[in-house]
Amino acid sequence: MKSGNTDSISKKTSIAIALAMAGSLSVAGVASAQQFETLEESKPPLVLESVGSFYVGGDLIFSDALGTDSRTGHTMVNQMYVQYMVPQGRQKVPVVLVHGGGLSGKNYDTQPDGRMGWFEYFVREGYPTYIPDQAARGRSTHDVSLFNQVRAGLLPPDELPLMNRTSNEFAWTAFRFGPQPGIPFPDTQFPIEALDEFAKQQTTTLNALLPSPDPNWQAMAELAAKLDGAVLAGFSQSGRFPLEAALIDPAGIRGAVLLEPAGGCNANIYTDDEIATLATVPIQVVFGDHLAGTTWQAAFDNCNIFIERVNSAGGNAEMLYPPAMGIFGNSHMLMNDLNSDQIADLIIDWISENVERRGRGVGRNR
Amino acid sequence: MKSGNTDSISKKTSIAIALAMAGSLSVAGVASAQQFETLEESKPPLVLESVGSFYVGGDLIFSDALGTDSRTGHTMVNQMYVQYMVPQGRQKVPVVLVHGGGLSGKNYDTQPDGRMGWFEYFVREGYPTYIPDQAARGRSTHDVSLFNQVRAGLLPPDELPLMNRTSNEFAWTAFRFGPQPGIPFPDTQFPIEALDEFAKQQTTTLNALLPSPDPNWQAMAELAAKLDGAVLAGFSQSGRFPLEAALIDPAGIRGAVLLEPAGGCNANIYTDDEIATLATVPIQVVFGDHLAGTTWQAAFDNCNIFIERVNSAGGNAEMLYPPAMGIFGNSHMLMNDLNSDQIADLIIDWISENVERRGRGVGRNR
Repeated sequence: MKSGNTDSISKKTSIAIALAMAGSLSVAGVASAQQFETLEESKPPLVLESVGSFYVGGDLIFSDALGTDSRTGHTMVNQMYVQYMVPQGRQKVPVVLVHGGGLSGKNYDTQPDGRMGWFEYFVREGYPTYIPDQAARGRSTHDVSLFNQVRAGLLPPDELPLMNRTSNEFAWTAFRFGPQPGIPFPDTQFPIEALDEFAKQQTTTLNALLPSPDPNWQAMAELAAKLDGAVLAGFSQSGRFPLEAALIDPAGIRGAVLLEPAGGCNANIYTDDEIATLATVPIQVVFGDHLAGTTWQAAFDNCNIFIERVNSAGGNAEMLYPPAMGIFGNSHMLMNDLNSDQIADLIIDWISENVERRGRGVGRNR
Repeated sequence: MKSGNTDSISKKTSIAIALAMAGSLSVAGVASAQQFETLEESKPPLVLESVGSFYVGGDLIFSDALGTDSRTGHTMVNQMYVQYMVPQGRQKVPVVLVHGGGLSGKNYDTQPDGRMGWFEYFVREGYPTYIPDQAARGRSTHDVSLFNQVRAGLLPPDELPLMNRTSNEFAWTAFRFGPQPGIPFPDTQFPIEALDEFAKQQTTTLNALLPSPDPNWQAMAELAAKLDGAVLAGFSQSGRFPLEAALIDPAGIRGAVLLEPAGGCNANIYTDDEIATLATVPIQVVFGDHLAGTTWQAAFDNCNIFIERVNSAGGNAEMLYPPAMGIFGNSHMLMNDLNSDQIADLIIDWISENVERRGRGVGRNR
């Protein structure tokens, strides 16, 4: 897929432009359906060794507040849903792509404007690919007791967790589509005509219901171990999760990709012992464009300091910053930008060089 | 896949028994992962023309109660997430499998005990297969405003919708695994050793947040039309949805499969005009075993009356009742029972005979 990448992007861009010209709120859904059909036709068949889904983790709890029908009893909570596709033939290292806040694993599947998502893209590049829904999100569900207890007057209303959803207006500036809602950056890579389709992906973030530490960290470490080694990628709200998983158990974690971690990389929080552990895992941090004047600039700066600390401890960490390579206009939503294949290729190049060529963990292979 | 079906069931049963012997709450997750790996090895590669997901429907709303970060603005609600796989080669009629209450589309994917779900099974049989998450469930998300307004004291707590989750104990009797929690029917087909894995699939049902009529009906009608004709299947809480979709627009609905519709088939509610419309769509109703003494008996009886009404109006409706064919022990969870492939084959036989052989709609083809 890498050969012809430029042509592929040009084609997709022109489809996106055609969509934008046809675009309005009312036709967005129709346009998207037409578009994925158009794009599907140009792809060769996808040959899979296996496809499916499973859960990692989970705690069996008892509750007497499960809603109607006397639903007192045991339910499972804190589990992590994982969807996967394993390509037929020679396989590369498994890759786990964890979504960000306000989203589900759907974010890595077919894109808002109908283009192939990183899920299928990585599979077509030979990677067994695993897409979780974080615990308490999407198909991973959550404990309902608290809501029913508040409803019944057994707990005060302010015990409810805030239920956050990302508005189009908030996304526009926070995800750096442009300087203010409705005004895109002239070079933005985000397909703004697909904003309403993107909005359909937004889910409620209920992490406030989760115990501490976040069970997603443990689930990611377990998943990597079960897969007998995997590259873990996190994004935004989950951007540091691969590091947290490695601090629980680095055994299965062959690489960590941190996509625009919200709040940065804990450069001034991790202890020297923790940095020493993280120095056994190859780490790539990725940030898009238009950071200046946003909170992402501080996150970027913090991650650069983190990278220095890890490398000083004998590790292998690096920053992928596309603008430094002449690639401009990437938003926070790197996996949904028009050049998402190009960004994927840069990550794949890094995995190939730093995980697959060197084997498991730089610390042991130098 | 049909040849060797008996062998296949025997093999799966013995795997399930082995699991049960190893089974406890603490090893359930591990056992499941081991099992799907075992089963995967025996399958030929899956060759797909396309794979991905999209949304159908959705309403853009404004809210000033979207949670933190001043998230005032527009979000999308009422959309239906749809995951799909289209097999390579000659394709049969598209099939849409809608999950029941307290579940998501995951229920049709890899089964709680690790066996292949109907999603992949139908694809391997040549059917482009579409798996929705109902609006306000799983990856389809929901409006959050009401929760934040209650939290802020702007609405009273009893305005909250009940958040229902199905406990293991409730499922055991309501889904007819056995006469009382912990006691299975001697001939039950449900893999009871996978009960905790099944529990991980349970999601919150937030249909109380949806407008009336249920937007899932419209979304299903739209999806069938977009697919240029599809068989719609509903289950339990969504069991009648294919009929409701047909009453909105039967144009794309080439068949309706009603899997244990909760409350029955509205035999005494649909008007003669509505029955006349439903008589243009081939309809199969499916009920499992052990109905006597449960609320499902009344649903079954009601559906038999419905079938008579439809057929008296010139339609083509029939009951698939496995015990009448000597197939015993099926629970409510027909798609998760140990003979789920066998039940799928009976549905596929019906589709083949009543939808594909006769073309679109019995009313027009007699």
